[in-house]
Amino acid sequence: LPVCHSRTPTTGPSSLSFRSHTCGELRSAHVGETVTLCGWVQYLRQDLFVILRDFSGSAQVLIPQDESVSHLKAALCNLTIESVIKVTGTVRSRPAGQENKAMPTGEVEILAEGVEVFNVCRKLPFEIKDFVKKSESLRMQYRYLDLRSARMQKNLRMRSQLVMKMRDYLCNVHGFVDVETPTLFKRTPGGAKEFVVPSREPGRFYSLPQSPQQFKQLLMVAGVDRYFQVARCYRDEGSKPARQPEFTQVDIEMSFVDQAGVLSLVEGLLQHSWPAELGVLAAPFPTMTYEEAMRDYGVDKPDTRFGMKLIDLAQVFSSTEVEFLRSALDQPGGSVQAVCVPSGAELFSGKDLEELKQTAKTQFGQELSVVLVRADGTLKSPLKKLLSGSATDELLQRTAARPGDLLLLAAGPLPSVRPLLGNLRLRCAALLESRGVSVRDPSAFHFLWVRDFPLFLPKEEAPGQLESAHHPFTAPLPEDALLLHTDPQKVRGQHYDLVLNGCEVGGGSIRIHKASEQLHVLQSVLKEDPSLLSHLLEALDSGAPPHGGIALGLDRLVSIMVGAPSIRDVMAFPKSFRGHDLMSRAPDFVSEEELKSYHIAVTWPAEEGEGEGSNKE
Amino acid sequence: LPVCHSRTPTTGPSSLSFRSHTCGELRSAHVGETVTLCGWVQYLRQDLFVILRDFSGSAQVLIPQDESVSHLKAALCNLTIESVIKVTGTVRSRPAGQENKAMPTGEVEILAEGVEVFNVCRKLPFEIKDFVKKSESLRMQYRYLDLRSARMQKNLRMRSQLVMKMRDYLCNVHGFVDVETPTLFKRTPGGAKEFVVPSREPGRFYSLPQSPQQFKQLLMVAGVDRYFQVARCYRDEGSKPARQPEFTQVDIEMSFVDQAGVLSLVEGLLQHSWPAELGVLAAPFPTMTYEEAMRDYGVDKPDTRFGMKLIDLAQVFSSTEVEFLRSALDQPGGSVQAVCVPSGAELFSGKDLEELKQTAKTQFGQELSVVLVRADGTLKSPLKKLLSGSATDELLQRTAARPGDLLLLAAGPLPSVRPLLGNLRLRCAALLESRGVSVRDPSAFHFLWVRDFPLFLPKEEAPGQLESAHHPFTAPLPEDALLLHTDPQKVRGQHYDLVLNGCEVGGGSIRIHKASEQLHVLQSVLKEDPSLLSHLLEALDSGAPPHGGIALGLDRLVSIMVGAPSIRDVMAFPKSFRGHDLMSRAPDFVSEEELKSYHIAVTWPAEEGEGEGSNKE
Repeated sequence: LPVCHSRTPTTGPSSLSFRSHTCGELRSAHVGETVTLCGWVQYLRQDLFVILRDFSGSAQVLIPQDESVSHLKAALCNLTIESVIKVTGTVRSRPAGQENKAMPTGEVEILAEGVEVFNVCRKLPFEIKDFVKKSESLRMQYRYLDLRSARMQKNLRMRSQLVMKMRDYLCNVHGFVDVETPTLFKRTPGGAKEFVVPSREPGRFYSLPQSPQQFKQLLMVAGVDRYFQVARCYRDEGSKPARQPEFTQVDIEMSFVDQAGVLSLVEGLLQHSWPAELGVLAAPFPTMTYEEAMRDYGVDKPDTRFGMKLIDLAQVFSSTEVEFLRSALDQPGGSVQAVCVPSGAELFSGKDLEELKQTAKTQFGQELSVVLVRADGTLKSPLKKLLSGSATDELLQRTAARPGDLLLLAAGPLPSVRPLLGNLRLRCAALLESRGVSVRDPSAFHFLWVRDFPLFLPKEEAPGQLESAHHPFTAPLPEDALLLHTDPQKVRGQHYDLVLNGCEVGGGSIRIHKASEQLHVLQSVLKEDPSLLSHLLEALDSGAPPHGGIALGLDRLVSIMVGAPSIRDVMAFPKSFRGHDLMSRAPDFVSEEELKSYHIAVTWPAEEGEGEGSNKE
Repeated sequence: LPVCHSRTPTTGPSSLSFRSHTCGELRSAHVGETVTLCGWVQYLRQDLFVILRDFSGSAQVLIPQDESVSHLKAALCNLTIESVIKVTGTVRSRPAGQENKAMPTGEVEILAEGVEVFNVCRKLPFEIKDFVKKSESLRMQYRYLDLRSARMQKNLRMRSQLVMKMRDYLCNVHGFVDVETPTLFKRTPGGAKEFVVPSREPGRFYSLPQSPQQFKQLLMVAGVDRYFQVARCYRDEGSKPARQPEFTQVDIEMSFVDQAGVLSLVEGLLQHSWPAELGVLAAPFPTMTYEEAMRDYGVDKPDTRFGMKLIDLAQVFSSTEVEFLRSALDQPGGSVQAVCVPSGAELFSGKDLEELKQTAKTQFGQELSVVLVRADGTLKSPLKKLLSGSATDELLQRTAARPGDLLLLAAGPLPSVRPLLGNLRLRCAALLESRGVSVRDPSAFHFLWVRDFPLFLPKEEAPGQLESAHHPFTAPLPEDALLLHTDPQKVRGQHYDLVLNGCEVGGGSIRIHKASEQLHVLQSVLKEDPSLLSHLLEALDSGAPPHGGIALGLDRLVSIMVGAPSIRDVMAFPKSFRGHDLMSRAPDFVSEEELKSYHIAVTWPAEEGEGEGSNKE
């Protein structure tokens, strides 16, 4: 074969660089070409081979054994793992029988003809191999090493590609305008979860907003028509394991649109940007009302990848004399509900059942009745002797329980029973899966819209008062608008949540666009001081179009797409669950002097010893 | 013509909305179609027409005068300016002679057949007309009205499209990965311009970084290979008119690349994303060394749209006996330099010249000699009688001054004389333009690379010590690397600035990728405590590839592209020059109670009365 010198390509990942190809792209078709690769030494084998790795994969470099190029051999054999080099050489077929089918470049190797060592790597705290187990805190402290793993490279690249395609769809297909909104903003009244940022004016603080909600609505009033932003948002919740102090949402708002328009847009958006390797996304997505979700799944973000729905047993027990069932059903809003766990009686141990009961008691303050259906169809339960034969038959029929199944029963007010069984439904699914039963297809993506949420909920601390279920800018359903003045608690809002595999990955609404309606909600329903939102009320009074939108939680969405257990696995530099950057050790102390220009001083707690150890996670 | 009902299109700006078309797109080709428009009432004329406006332009709606649809006429005639409506009607040709050539939709009008009023607008603080002058503070307070102007709509949309094309180029053409980096970070030692963010741990603060510099380098160590981010950055400089506390940079970093590679990438990036309406961008861009820029233009970001370069007169005055020239030239590093202003003698008044001298004195602490070349070629200057005939001839020859021109002369140390004349050169250009002379083509875009900056500069407060000219991570020119150990002040860095029409719109460098070299710079040259950057040094020691990058100032770049006087004109919601949001009144007071969870308290200044009036700009 004639020797063919590859030049740096003008486009693609090797353009403008020292290399001619990436490590992962070489195939038999390249045999005979002279190529230049740059990358990290994955490992050395018997002074014969160097496996060179970059983001795209790895390639086998053959170390020449010829005396005339002994300097080359010396340079390569002295390398430490993870050193960074450039290798020029000729692509050859591997000798017959030495191909590696598990390696995409396994048919070829590169006979080294020149090498440049860019950097020699010292001993590392852990090896860059996906199968090497590392503690979370070690991964975070050496994040720049952790990110070298194939898994993290894939996660970051899939995220980048997803966002790129989303932007393409919004800008180029539907005429959206990418607008950046400020993150140094005014504090929301009572915004306890907002970080404050002191200014150089004594006593005055900016605040890092939890979302661009006000700005996106103001942009609609401003006639921008269609806005989107991949927006950084902030939420200070102290230490919550699943949360990050800063996170990203794909923020969207449109004018002259109704709920159906927003839902269509998002469905098209996800179809357009969905990675081919994850399969085809069918649209429109199924839709469910809040009431249906709570009724069937006991939760407003149901995982619809499996059944095990909540079953209402009010009819079965309509004439029961069993004390706790009777008293539950006699109360207004009282109910008896069950979940049937297929094979639960077979597969769950006594300890499992005890834990389910404990969960009901400690986390939900409720009693759980457990009914096992034996192989012969008879029941095993404390309830058994209290039930007549016909009640037993009716129970089995209504729940469609079969031999080997498990029934979980709860009795009480609906708003207590549903969340309990909704939670146990998910626990039982996980438990079944841990016993080898396939309940949820891990490669399935079940998107679902949940809509018609209540617009207001009773305040937890003062149930006589109402608070917004989502935020005070959500418009009521048109058919419920009059109830705003007579029975606000019955009003359903034009809010919609996007749910994926049982996780909320987005939420939005059609907004109130009339100042008078917004004022009524703030002043008369929520009893809030409307002057705090005077700029928004004034804006609505200045020619506001009907508008609505949505925000997608990008971190959560991507983490589900890549099958990562945590959103930390789809962020380059996440904080620990205590909000620390373990690499740079942020947050850190700042001198009194430096705080002076912000007119603040630290108020040290009287007793608590801090300092040593407070760095630890 | 047959009536043709338009449906909502499936793509484009009217997809998924209440309208079938935007106001600005209707042409003669649409005649006969039934269309639905949504928009703002721009004005009403004689109860005959409504001019309806949206982001795309405006259209004339004909109010039907027929008695049978009097409700339609009543609804339309009662509208206030800036009310928001939906109109359905038939597109017609305007009667002959009534076409409006100045209006893109001026050949047609829409005969209204149905109208829906979405919102009635109250009286506004100013009209939405580009020619109506508004104060800056009124514009900011009612930003949602100000943004309705055609100019601001254009600015925001051009920005969005530019960024979209930049992303397309980086991701899709060159394989870059869009990675989000944290904005809650550790405070840079001595980072006086970094906002602090108190955490819930007593005394510990996050900091809002001025750029993702450390993270982008860590991403290269992490093997991400090619990173970019349209990154929000923060800088607290108190009140500086031209600055914003938060701003945006297009942040780029590449591995296995040299300076030529980065410059090519940026040239391709700008060519790819440059709006067609601004003409074609030629590449490669001209390049100049820092030394050449200072020599010819007296500034490191020269406006190369015009000449009037600095002229060295050392030779002309090599044997002069004129006292101040002699003493300047006798000093080491001393010089005599001039700028020749064409027609300056003709067009500048005595007052103009006086102001130039005053600027030299008050802002630069230097004397300026002014020489006018009369129409007859003789000089008018205090210097005249001190110069011999041959010296005069030589001066005119060297400066190429012609009758009517003005010479500005300065004598002293080079580092003083150059910036003075560089500044006066720009002032004179503006002055000439104000007198009607065309000096700079307002539609020209002169990109320029300035490179080979000094790596270190003497500290202003302690000239015996050195500080980084840009930042401590910049690599030296390879040929100067040894000087790092012997004469660091002579080392030139692999830093490059991108200049557009005399403004710096970008800056970057090839970075140090060896831990030992980085440690030497921090410890031995800059005398800094390297432990503060231990995580970066450790990372460089863990297999860091050679890498480099750049950051483009997006706000400034777009403001020059659209010809806006301020970056505030290309941001949706900018802060005032005092850092205030005049719409929401941020920053604002926060209760003592709310600050408690952050363990801080306000230290009120002893005397200064704040409160009333402190809101004013």
